[in-house]
Amino acid sequence: MRALLLDGKLKLVEDYPTPEPPPSEALIRVNVAGVCSTDLELVKGYHQFRGVPGHEFVGVVERAPGAEAWEGRRVVGEINVACGDCPTCRANCPTHCPNRTTLGINGRDGAFAEYLTLPVANLHPVPDAVSDEVAVFTEPLAAACEIVQQVHVRPTDRVIVVGDGKLGLLCAQVLALTGCHLTVVGHHREKLEIVARQGIATALDDADAASLTDVEGGADIVVEATGHPRGYAAARRLVRPRGTVVLKSTYHASLEVNLTEVVVDEITLVGSRCGPFAPALRLLERGLVEVAPLIQARYPFSTVLTAFEQAAQPGALKVLVTQGA
Amino acid sequence: MRALLLDGKLKLVEDYPTPEPPPSEALIRVNVAGVCSTDLELVKGYHQFRGVPGHEFVGVVERAPGAEAWEGRRVVGEINVACGDCPTCRANCPTHCPNRTTLGINGRDGAFAEYLTLPVANLHPVPDAVSDEVAVFTEPLAAACEIVQQVHVRPTDRVIVVGDGKLGLLCAQVLALTGCHLTVVGHHREKLEIVARQGIATALDDADAASLTDVEGGADIVVEATGHPRGYAAARRLVRPRGTVVLKSTYHASLEVNLTEVVVDEITLVGSRCGPFAPALRLLERGLVEVAPLIQARYPFSTVLTAFEQAAQPGALKVLVTQGA
Repeated sequence: MRALLLDGKLKLVEDYPTPEPPPSEALIRVNVAGVCSTDLELVKGYHQFRGVPGHEFVGVVERAPGAEAWEGRRVVGEINVACGDCPTCRANCPTHCPNRTTLGINGRDGAFAEYLTLPVANLHPVPDAVSDEVAVFTEPLAAACEIVQQVHVRPTDRVIVVGDGKLGLLCAQVLALTGCHLTVVGHHREKLEIVARQGIATALDDADAASLTDVEGGADIVVEATGHPRGYAAARRLVRPRGTVVLKSTYHASLEVNLTEVVVDEITLVGSRCGPFAPALRLLERGLVEVAPLIQARYPFSTVLTAFEQAAQPGALKVLVTQGA
Repeated sequence: MRALLLDGKLKLVEDYPTPEPPPSEALIRVNVAGVCSTDLELVKGYHQFRGVPGHEFVGVVERAPGAEAWEGRRVVGEINVACGDCPTCRANCPTHCPNRTTLGINGRDGAFAEYLTLPVANLHPVPDAVSDEVAVFTEPLAAACEIVQQVHVRPTDRVIVVGDGKLGLLCAQVLALTGCHLTVVGHHREKLEIVARQGIATALDDADAASLTDVEGGADIVVEATGHPRGYAAARRLVRPRGTVVLKSTYHASLEVNLTEVVVDEITLVGSRCGPFAPALRLLERGLVEVAPLIQARYPFSTVLTAFEQAAQPGALKVLVTQGA
């Protein structure tokens, strides 16, 4: 099959072996895959990943031995594949299984190919009303939902999202549904416009954003979704004493942090990663989160390398890669 | 009056002006003061503090203009003095008031002197059954109580305290009262013995402690109370995915932290500082926390400089300085 292969660098190969689903897994034909910032980090060396990248996808189940009812269904899939048997799995925490593989990220080929395999247990049927181009946002939207899964966001809370990238704008839309007093801070006026059109308050860093620090002694909750090490300092500056900073960014670097200040101000830092698919699909089906304006471009698979170049441009939004052409 | 003055370096002065209590404050004659690790950090330059250090004390109210009922009472005192008027104070968070002074730490002379002043609102009467040498532990014990004030510790939780210093041993005793599965990890067999005698499990770093990482996929909660930057890595290694690390250490340094790992493992880091005095006094009065074995030495005030030297020795426990001689 055709596949995008990361092996030190990215290359398009025509004769990659079509995967054979192991027991309890399904073979899925990919319709659309999205380029995530994590994919770009993988190219830079994050996780030393070798294989087919891609973890945001919509596809159709081609074969599901022993679970034939899934065959022909359009699906999205949770990306962590747990062992099911370790203390972490038994503690009902499979996304943190130390033996896990992660689709297109760690130990498992991903979605930038004609086919992938995933356990049937990881699959979620996509409602008919949700198009491929919307459903492909399920995985990143689930990651946004993880914030409200981990942290109790009160309708009276003052919340700031730092970062106006793809994930930041999804986080903002999920948080706005709580009724909280929300502001999105970013560098890109045109990206902030996407949520501003929905009535969400925005502030352009650094001009307006500087004044945010004066508001009522800081925000109750700040979500750091810049994807950059520098986002932490901004989040830290904007949060009130005893407030919470939710960390969403993963990048290939460490950071100098003053933990004593975290102690003195009694800040809570919450690392937040993959989230629940079912609520993400419900929000998409009900149209409560708008993803169409987040699509920067669509590329046929034959031009997937160009798609990655496009996605790596500063300020790029979601780049989709479609199979079939 | 006699006072210990930090002005670049420590010196004992005989003619420091006796403070005059401003409106709503009380003049307190100090009976006993304890040397805290924070005092030693101040000497190293933390906060660039100039003045009289000391924030752990028991004393007797000498004068309280307008609140004469307090005169003659034996008291301990909360160390943060808030403005009462800013958004943080109005949000009922006075210990984080940006305009606050802190006794013997920031903008306010402290307890290594014959007298100090504090607002009457900061004072707590010491029950008769609690001796000076026990009551002087109210402030650090309150800091230990702050952990259970901030984090819900369940009786079924597996909890590890990293650090067998004064604060670590107080934290351990407070946490053990929840009934949780507790282990204290430290470098000093004789200090671990203090809580081991109470039936609390201990492990000597690094021999036994290395095996802790294998236990059931990590601890639910790890308290970092080493007072050293290196404590973070140990705490991080011992906590399970989605677990909580409570940060109690303050030191005069920043730290290289891998926040991406915090995101991937969805760790919650909780900065934790000063705590509530009333529960600390209740625990002391009921004898539920044992502090006598934590006293390393007692020095009369005339030898306060020697007391600081003693307190700065590696592995030192609580050094007390008594007035009157």
